[in-house]
Amino acid sequence: MELLSELVIESESKIVFLIADGLGGLPQPGKLEKTELESAHKPNLDALAQGSICGMSEPIGPGITPGSGPAHLSLFGYDPIKYQIGRGALSAAGVGLEQGQHDVAARINFATIDNNGVVRDRRAGRLPTEKTRELCSLLEGIKLPGAEIIVRAEKEHRGVVLFRGEGLSDKLTDSDPQKEGLPILEVKATEPQAARTASLVNRFIRESISLLKSQAPANTILLRGFASYPDLPQFDKLYKLKSAAIAAYPMYKGIARLLGMKVLDGCETIKDEFELLKANFRNHDFFFVHFKKTDSAGEDGDFERKVKAIEELDGYIPQLVDLKPDVIVVTGDHSTPSVLKSHSWHPVPFLMYSKFCRHDDVSTFSESACSKGLLGVFPAVNIMPLVLANGLRLKKFGA
Amino acid sequence: MELLSELVIESESKIVFLIADGLGGLPQPGKLEKTELESAHKPNLDALAQGSICGMSEPIGPGITPGSGPAHLSLFGYDPIKYQIGRGALSAAGVGLEQGQHDVAARINFATIDNNGVVRDRRAGRLPTEKTRELCSLLEGIKLPGAEIIVRAEKEHRGVVLFRGEGLSDKLTDSDPQKEGLPILEVKATEPQAARTASLVNRFIRESISLLKSQAPANTILLRGFASYPDLPQFDKLYKLKSAAIAAYPMYKGIARLLGMKVLDGCETIKDEFELLKANFRNHDFFFVHFKKTDSAGEDGDFERKVKAIEELDGYIPQLVDLKPDVIVVTGDHSTPSVLKSHSWHPVPFLMYSKFCRHDDVSTFSESACSKGLLGVFPAVNIMPLVLANGLRLKKFGA
Repeated sequence: MELLSELVIESESKIVFLIADGLGGLPQPGKLEKTELESAHKPNLDALAQGSICGMSEPIGPGITPGSGPAHLSLFGYDPIKYQIGRGALSAAGVGLEQGQHDVAARINFATIDNNGVVRDRRAGRLPTEKTRELCSLLEGIKLPGAEIIVRAEKEHRGVVLFRGEGLSDKLTDSDPQKEGLPILEVKATEPQAARTASLVNRFIRESISLLKSQAPANTILLRGFASYPDLPQFDKLYKLKSAAIAAYPMYKGIARLLGMKVLDGCETIKDEFELLKANFRNHDFFFVHFKKTDSAGEDGDFERKVKAIEELDGYIPQLVDLKPDVIVVTGDHSTPSVLKSHSWHPVPFLMYSKFCRHDDVSTFSESACSKGLLGVFPAVNIMPLVLANGLRLKKFGA
Repeated sequence: MELLSELVIESESKIVFLIADGLGGLPQPGKLEKTELESAHKPNLDALAQGSICGMSEPIGPGITPGSGPAHLSLFGYDPIKYQIGRGALSAAGVGLEQGQHDVAARINFATIDNNGVVRDRRAGRLPTEKTRELCSLLEGIKLPGAEIIVRAEKEHRGVVLFRGEGLSDKLTDSDPQKEGLPILEVKATEPQAARTASLVNRFIRESISLLKSQAPANTILLRGFASYPDLPQFDKLYKLKSAAIAAYPMYKGIARLLGMKVLDGCETIKDEFELLKANFRNHDFFFVHFKKTDSAGEDGDFERKVKAIEELDGYIPQLVDLKPDVIVVTGDHSTPSVLKSHSWHPVPFLMYSKFCRHDDVSTFSESACSKGLLGVFPAVNIMPLVLANGLRLKKFGA
């Protein structure tokens, strides 16, 4: 990354990253031997693949299933092992909360517990965002000694809480048991200095449960990813780019903001996203366009809906191509096979179009076709150098 | 490895590693362009490959020929450069010798020298194990000043010697010239503190030769792999597995023991090994099953015998598949091409079956087919993360 930064030069070239979240998949057991992407009718992506160089991008390493944070850091050329961002900090940035150096943020899931305190639904039936907003205001009324509480809604059942005060620590375990059928966990300090924060947080959880008693299915909160503000090298400075992030979901705006990207607001749908892209195409030279539906459908185990999401995305490809960017990348941050209902470790189909990409003979955009592409299976952190080179934005190394 | 260990979770899934020692091969010069594996009739392995993801596993790195120790360490996810075990320590563990922190072990080959002290057969015609036992007792009678001598037989011409005493060092060169037609080498200290041990060992060798004078073809010993006891992270703890090692040869039991695996005793043949696997399948979740004949035939330069060994192994694959493990790996620890009569640097055919492996279109299990598999040529240390992921034994990295 330091080498890259030394070689970067300015240029007029335009780069677009179209990231279909959780794009990679697996076949349905007992059905045709086709993944979601292989089942989709996607003539535009296939045509784009034909002029591109293809491969399978590996977000972290063999066998490692990434969260959204590390998966996106890799895409943007940041070593995801070296630069670790807690979910809390991601979420805070995503909703536009200014996190201070000493504030500790955590991700909230509104969830359902039964009378024995056992988690029955980690997402409270995917609570409507409006209701989540209302409950967040309720929780913001909780008073803790020596810490201010700020609570904000994200999408659906998701929220974020910021603990603001002196001497707080993020060295805490989650209260979210990560699986249904298990009780909420006590938050524990993983180093002695965090003991006071742990006790504050546990008190916040108890008071939240008491306030939410009558709010079933959202009768509890689960906290995870306690995180102080991460200090990351800034994307635009690192790569001499004028970047713009276009994402409907707060989390992805969040990561863009942590990297210092300009976040273009005002989009809810993929249609909005492409309108924003077109409207701002002159004013930036790097665009991160994030498409969420592929991941949501995968997480819900809905193979057909994921197929449809891919087909919907395919419909927008001509608008992208018409803008004539110098470099186009289409890939995912990770795989989310419907059959696993979760992120997975599988490498992700990748294509990069540019005039100078030395395209391979991949003629469809799919896991099996991209596996035979010229890039093979390669680490996602290699994408940025490839993209900058194809945008003629890297000078020669050495004399 | 640290990252992996942090991500590991418990699960009910069952994993079987079937390791055909020295599996990879080369074509016979002047014959059909087929390796041993490509020449074998192995319908069961081919069928297994069809539902698997395949590739070529590289034990250490390009061009590097591994010994059995590092080759197995790689398979089990240990960086073989960082964790080096001398052959002596491996052999000692293999025969069940308790090696202390300061004991120095070395591997013995009973061998044949001519009147000029030149090695004519490094294996003394593959001496019967019974005879080796007798000669080991003979050598154990040697008395050295300041060191106790313990000598044990392994299989055939192989044995192990333990030098037990204060202030001994394993920083010694081998006496084994590794090739026939060369004289036995003087053991030398590679650091000054080892000088006394070197002189003790050379005295042991001289007295052994004198005791073995009338025992041709076993009229000398060759020593290699001087080693103190290695301190390795323990496999079961590292990966949250309950492992079992099934191996007929002491060396492979040895490495399993050094890693803290439970060694299931009582097998001499591949038939016994599969009986043990079936009998213990309920009680463990990771099985290392070691098949030696492929390597022995390769070492002897016997192409046809290696083909037959592979065919024999193939006959047992249905028994393995019938157990319905969640993850099956079939590979070798390294290549042993008959034409080279020794271990080699060539990558090793690899298959991994699991429900979630995203299988490729490899339809036969061979060097040429696996080279076109989705995993490509990949480092053997990546096998464990892949296997744990496919056994759904790794949680997500980051938020």
